[in-house]
Amino acid sequence: MPVDQGPLSDALERSRHSLTLSNPNPRVGCVILAPDGREIGRGHTQQAGGPHAEVVALRDAAQRGESTRGATAYVTLEPCSHHGRTPPCCDALIAADMAKVVVATGDPNPKVAGRGLERLRAAGIEVELLPSEHPVALATRELNIGFFSRMIRGTPWVRMKAAMSLDGVTALGNGVSQWITGEAARADGHAWRARACAVLTGIGTVLEDDPMLDVRQVPTPRQPHLVIIDSKLETPPTARLFQAPAQGLARQIFIYCAASDTSRQAALEQLGSTVIALPGPGGKVDLAAMLRDLASREVNELHLEAGHKLNGSFIREGLVDEFLLYLAPQMLGVGGSGLANWGPLQSLDQRLPLRFASVEPVGEDLRILARVQGRDRFMHA
Amino acid sequence: MPVDQGPLSDALERSRHSLTLSNPNPRVGCVILAPDGREIGRGHTQQAGGPHAEVVALRDAAQRGESTRGATAYVTLEPCSHHGRTPPCCDALIAADMAKVVVATGDPNPKVAGRGLERLRAAGIEVELLPSEHPVALATRELNIGFFSRMIRGTPWVRMKAAMSLDGVTALGNGVSQWITGEAARADGHAWRARACAVLTGIGTVLEDDPMLDVRQVPTPRQPHLVIIDSKLETPPTARLFQAPAQGLARQIFIYCAASDTSRQAALEQLGSTVIALPGPGGKVDLAAMLRDLASREVNELHLEAGHKLNGSFIREGLVDEFLLYLAPQMLGVGGSGLANWGPLQSLDQRLPLRFASVEPVGEDLRILARVQGRDRFMHA
Repeated sequence: MPVDQGPLSDALERSRHSLTLSNPNPRVGCVILAPDGREIGRGHTQQAGGPHAEVVALRDAAQRGESTRGATAYVTLEPCSHHGRTPPCCDALIAADMAKVVVATGDPNPKVAGRGLERLRAAGIEVELLPSEHPVALATRELNIGFFSRMIRGTPWVRMKAAMSLDGVTALGNGVSQWITGEAARADGHAWRARACAVLTGIGTVLEDDPMLDVRQVPTPRQPHLVIIDSKLETPPTARLFQAPAQGLARQIFIYCAASDTSRQAALEQLGSTVIALPGPGGKVDLAAMLRDLASREVNELHLEAGHKLNGSFIREGLVDEFLLYLAPQMLGVGGSGLANWGPLQSLDQRLPLRFASVEPVGEDLRILARVQGRDRFMHA
Repeated sequence: MPVDQGPLSDALERSRHSLTLSNPNPRVGCVILAPDGREIGRGHTQQAGGPHAEVVALRDAAQRGESTRGATAYVTLEPCSHHGRTPPCCDALIAADMAKVVVATGDPNPKVAGRGLERLRAAGIEVELLPSEHPVALATRELNIGFFSRMIRGTPWVRMKAAMSLDGVTALGNGVSQWITGEAARADGHAWRARACAVLTGIGTVLEDDPMLDVRQVPTPRQPHLVIIDSKLETPPTARLFQAPAQGLARQIFIYCAASDTSRQAALEQLGSTVIALPGPGGKVDLAAMLRDLASREVNELHLEAGHKLNGSFIREGLVDEFLLYLAPQMLGVGGSGLANWGPLQSLDQRLPLRFASVEPVGEDLRILARVQGRDRFMHA
């Protein structure tokens, strides 16, 4: 039986409204059609602790004075069957007397996948799951790549962001890098911060630039958390990053070190941050363990804005999933820093192979999203 | 009186067929309409010494058995009024009894500009010249940017080509650079060679790679000339570049040195090349003088494919007009060579400011054409 793509595409479109809102919950949309085909409700997942897409759509139908008896719900992700921060959506759909539920893609968590569908079927609701390569299924997984990564791989989706000249320079030899790209690219970079669960940087950037690393240049309902890689726990308690961002909900600050220092740790924790010691070889933070730890803290998409040294460590250890690069129309010559301090390579076989996922002009600059080959394989398993 | 853009756009389209054919003559197209509006002839400029667009279109009309009496010719560039390699096109149009000639853009040579139009008017032909910012006028000048550069600035249009990784690496530290980009990009690079009047490289590349630097991967009716920057005249007479290309007409080879050596010069000239001594400071070739010399040898577009040292000299001396860059989806890290050895800069104000002119996928790679800001100002003077 062919699926009517109209309402599912509408549900997908709704789900995009959750982009900067629902973290760490997935971005989900739902559209409800009455038995006569009229749309009677729609919704997308709200912020964590708030209602999921299905419940928002059911409430929308109730507010419109519409009965959902015998209706069909189109939802982009398998409805949840467990009590999380909210009651299970399956129960709400069953209580609403739905005749049918069409689902674009299953729950990525292998431990729960299919249980939502089973529960609906057990209640006598007809359930239809799209083929896994259906365009709406693919787009739903792509929109939720960080959530799928966390559920399937147990690590966040790691996106390395940088601004550089066309000849690959991210900072002059004297450290000057403000501003290589233009205002539109900087605002766009903030929009990408806004969709991430957390922004990560290194102690070098904290000490040199004293950045806030919050979302300022675009509106956002919430702020991404902040992660600092700080092997020796040198983050100054006076750093600007401890100031409250001007908009959005409060953010958490996670400081990863290799060897803790009781008094420094106490000072940083008094400022509301969480200090985590994860020692790796050479007195450095164990970055792979840190990613697993962040996943356990519900970080889906991790947005890296670090200097070339920390960037080099992430690439060297094979931890980067994709690059978000802003290329400015200018040449800066030799003597400065590049994107990442790793290498040198002896042969082209050792290169980090990518695929251009999108190339878009942003103001006078160019935004290139390039994905490390094979890193999104989990999305198609 | 509004211009009918249809036949002029057709003439522009015809002119694109001269891209790799007519050098060093401009790329020109011509369409002839009968008094009743039917197209009765069309043509584009052939190879040097062959007929220009107007004459090809007149012959086309004659072959179709059409009379050109009272017809209108639409031609993208002002018809020539002087005897060059061929008789003046103005005379041919006058002899054909045309009623009207519509011209997209004037002759760029300030010494002759307007004389073609005057000559037509003096013969009683109605002449219409488009406004200089008309889209067909702009597109004609853009297509002939090298010809306009040579006529107005007295130097070729200098296009620096390079293939690099997304992080700006053109070769590994051990010199390995084959192949960073894919086959489609390499073929596309040959297509850009084919449209140039000359390809330029340095003695470093000759000694390291022993390249042919001809057009092989795409068909071409002619080969661009070859220019070698070879301060000490070290080009080996055994270099492959002296071999005849497999297709196209014979090419000329110009070797610029800073201090000639009689016996070496004799050996190289015996192979058919032309050796020119143009000493500049520091025992180097005077590159600015070389560009003027190449213009006097009718080089319109000069295609640079050199190593990072010579590239650095061209940028440092402000001689580059645009960059043709192929970006491969890969990271190569530190320790290799970048595009050009110039700098270091102390401030971002010293950057070479560009403008992205086009960004296109080519196979798995990305082709970026970026123009140095202000360098094409002569086109709008």
